[in-house]
Amino acid sequence: MGLLMFYEYLSKVETLLEENKDLELHVYLEDMHAADIAEVLENLEDDQQIQVFGLLSDEKATEVLEEINSEQFSILLKDLTYEKKVTLLENMSQDDIVDKLSELPESRQQEIIAFLDYEDAADVKELLVYEEGTAGRSMTKDYVSIRKDYSVYYAIETLRAIAPDAETIYYLYVTDEIDRLVGVISLRELIISPPNRTVDTIMNENLITVNVNDDQEDVAKVVSKYDLLAVPVVDNDNILRGIITIDDVLDILEEEATEDIFKFAGTSEYEIYENDTTLFKRVRNSVMSRLPWLIITIFGGLLSARILANFQGTISANATLAMFMPLLTGMGGNVGTQSSTITVRNIATHVIEGTGIFRTLIHEISVGLFVGIVCSTMVAFAAMMMQADYHIALIVGIAMWANMTTAATIGTIVPLVFKKIGVDPAVASAPFITTTIDLTGLTIYFSLATIMITKV
Amino acid sequence: MGLLMFYEYLSKVETLLEENKDLELHVYLEDMHAADIAEVLENLEDDQQIQVFGLLSDEKATEVLEEINSEQFSILLKDLTYEKKVTLLENMSQDDIVDKLSELPESRQQEIIAFLDYEDAADVKELLVYEEGTAGRSMTKDYVSIRKDYSVYYAIETLRAIAPDAETIYYLYVTDEIDRLVGVISLRELIISPPNRTVDTIMNENLITVNVNDDQEDVAKVVSKYDLLAVPVVDNDNILRGIITIDDVLDILEEEATEDIFKFAGTSEYEIYENDTTLFKRVRNSVMSRLPWLIITIFGGLLSARILANFQGTISANATLAMFMPLLTGMGGNVGTQSSTITVRNIATHVIEGTGIFRTLIHEISVGLFVGIVCSTMVAFAAMMMQADYHIALIVGIAMWANMTTAATIGTIVPLVFKKIGVDPAVASAPFITTTIDLTGLTIYFSLATIMITKV
Repeated sequence: MGLLMFYEYLSKVETLLEENKDLELHVYLEDMHAADIAEVLENLEDDQQIQVFGLLSDEKATEVLEEINSEQFSILLKDLTYEKKVTLLENMSQDDIVDKLSELPESRQQEIIAFLDYEDAADVKELLVYEEGTAGRSMTKDYVSIRKDYSVYYAIETLRAIAPDAETIYYLYVTDEIDRLVGVISLRELIISPPNRTVDTIMNENLITVNVNDDQEDVAKVVSKYDLLAVPVVDNDNILRGIITIDDVLDILEEEATEDIFKFAGTSEYEIYENDTTLFKRVRNSVMSRLPWLIITIFGGLLSARILANFQGTISANATLAMFMPLLTGMGGNVGTQSSTITVRNIATHVIEGTGIFRTLIHEISVGLFVGIVCSTMVAFAAMMMQADYHIALIVGIAMWANMTTAATIGTIVPLVFKKIGVDPAVASAPFITTTIDLTGLTIYFSLATIMITKV
Repeated sequence: MGLLMFYEYLSKVETLLEENKDLELHVYLEDMHAADIAEVLENLEDDQQIQVFGLLSDEKATEVLEEINSEQFSILLKDLTYEKKVTLLENMSQDDIVDKLSELPESRQQEIIAFLDYEDAADVKELLVYEEGTAGRSMTKDYVSIRKDYSVYYAIETLRAIAPDAETIYYLYVTDEIDRLVGVISLRELIISPPNRTVDTIMNENLITVNVNDDQEDVAKVVSKYDLLAVPVVDNDNILRGIITIDDVLDILEEEATEDIFKFAGTSEYEIYENDTTLFKRVRNSVMSRLPWLIITIFGGLLSARILANFQGTISANATLAMFMPLLTGMGGNVGTQSSTITVRNIATHVIEGTGIFRTLIHEISVGLFVGIVCSTMVAFAAMMMQADYHIALIVGIAMWANMTTAATIGTIVPLVFKKIGVDPAVASAPFITTTIDLTGLTIYFSLATIMITKV
């Protein structure tokens, strides 16, 4: 499987480079998949990259440019002759060009667009107008469209002519006289239909479309839900503007999954590794994207300190109580994170709808109660053995149980409330939940301790 | 866009059900996409589901069975006549049947397989033999294969005959006399080739395949990396056993993303909401899958308590020190989680390879140093204002800075080491990292305090 062979490819290419075996390297590269070559290039020094890239045939070089990241794309392109630039860019698929340009500065975008032919340049400029993250930006204009009054025979002939350039030929989009989308036919249906029928008698009018301004994540969900190979993108007048194919949807889904995971960890620095060249810039971006979450945590921590200040007397008199603070806050944080992660993910994957909200809440609180009983019993015994003081053991045990149940409740309610008021639960929940849980947990613990120890 | 219309569909169906307008409901349902009907059914009571399902045409009913979850699949099927069961199951795609059966008890699997025709039953039984999560289990046997000595014309004719049953007709797999896979042709290439050529002269022999025993996540990565619409699955003798299509890859990716997110939160309870019917069973499963992480946290917390026991004297003498403990452990935990999440994700998406390891480490430690400087300065000022004691402020500030830098380092190194020794970094990192950071953070803080306060 190609994925596991990466190191083999890399070391073979490096060896052939060192030994200056250009011809052998050329032959080796031509047999490799473009995606593998791109991966190897991304792990070579800039001058080695240029050397290897120069050995590729035009066809392979085009495919590699489609697969490689923006930064490398820009570097590799710089070193080519005028003719080579024009040839490679002309053969590249539009949405890949737009994808690379999206992440380059505007001046560099203009430079590269200048090498495109008139039609491609116009298309690329149109696509770049749409905002990043929308269907318009992710779509391609390389689709096959036919008029509704074509015969099946003529439709297949049209397809033969356009096929080499089209991004997908498995759906043919049917339009009326003014380019409005009226139907779709799959190549499969076309192949099995009588050649003399007209397209509008066999086309499927029950179309699933997306709008140019739709969020790309919603587009990915539509393609995934309805098992499509491509989805047409229309504007507000229902004019067909482009299509988004399933291979791009895979990329979108991977991007969004990474974003979601980063959000949970309290950072939004997606893709910084790829886009910035210097260590300083990359570190600065990371710092800027992580600081907001950390500063919220500082305020939470200072609030905790303020609350603990009220219990100074209790702590001074019983320094043993302080020993179990990290255990208490740690467990609360863990339980809260478990509940909130599951709630946030269920919201994202639409498991929670209607009655699901109530069911999730009951579920999470029940889980909190049960894990609370098990864990607080264990902890109470451990505290008893460590301190041989049943008061401390009792306080720690009861506080732990109350804290874990509260934590599960807070971890479930906060994302649901955030969703209700229109705040992204994944981003906002993490620092807010852990802080709240710390505050309630410590208050429960020391209030209990103050009451029980004073009473004794 | 269909996804956003869910509530509209649900309330319309509920209204028509209440008003007993069966004919109108039938017409309304036939216009809906099967994926939408399945989603509506999953939100109705069991008896309503059966009523609605009974109104569907055979074609629609088959599609709905393909889309619906296992539990509902089993319920809906139970209430049908023998003929209806046979008809619907015969038309369902194989991989969907296997997918539903996978999550049902074996006795129920056997009951359902009994309604399949001989050939389908044999195929489904074969697929069920492969382990859950492997390529063999996820594949379908509904593919188009042709012999290498066919002409293009005859290949297209074969396709016309098989097309209605096949899962995808966009790739035709070419085999030799003993069913070994020797090449592939896309429908696109076939359409544009001269009808009298033989298949082996135009087929692509540079095949990307996966093995029946490969992990489905690796299969998804291969399909995504090489932009395939389907990938052939072969056994150890290179005999073609099935194919996996890109729509199934989308489902696999979504499943794996959810699993990854759950792992970060310290739980492995994926899909429990769907598969268990009673609240008790669901809660029990959640408790069992969350407890291991919590118990590890308990041991970590007890170790913290043990360390703090050594500093009892310092704490008793300066109860103020205890005030800042939650702030210190909270910040360390946050920084550590940020670094470990990014490292784990980079490992998963293969950003970290070769020199990337060293680069990631340098990056994360630098980020830890910088966010540490900003945050510890803020905290030191706040501590100064709250306590008007520059000793405490200095201790808290320095400890915070050291702790945050250490946390970033630990958060990066632990996943890398786990990966090296073959442990899943996503599962093992979370509790291990927070515990380690708590221990080092508290040790730094109280050691510093003991030294500085004793010295004064």
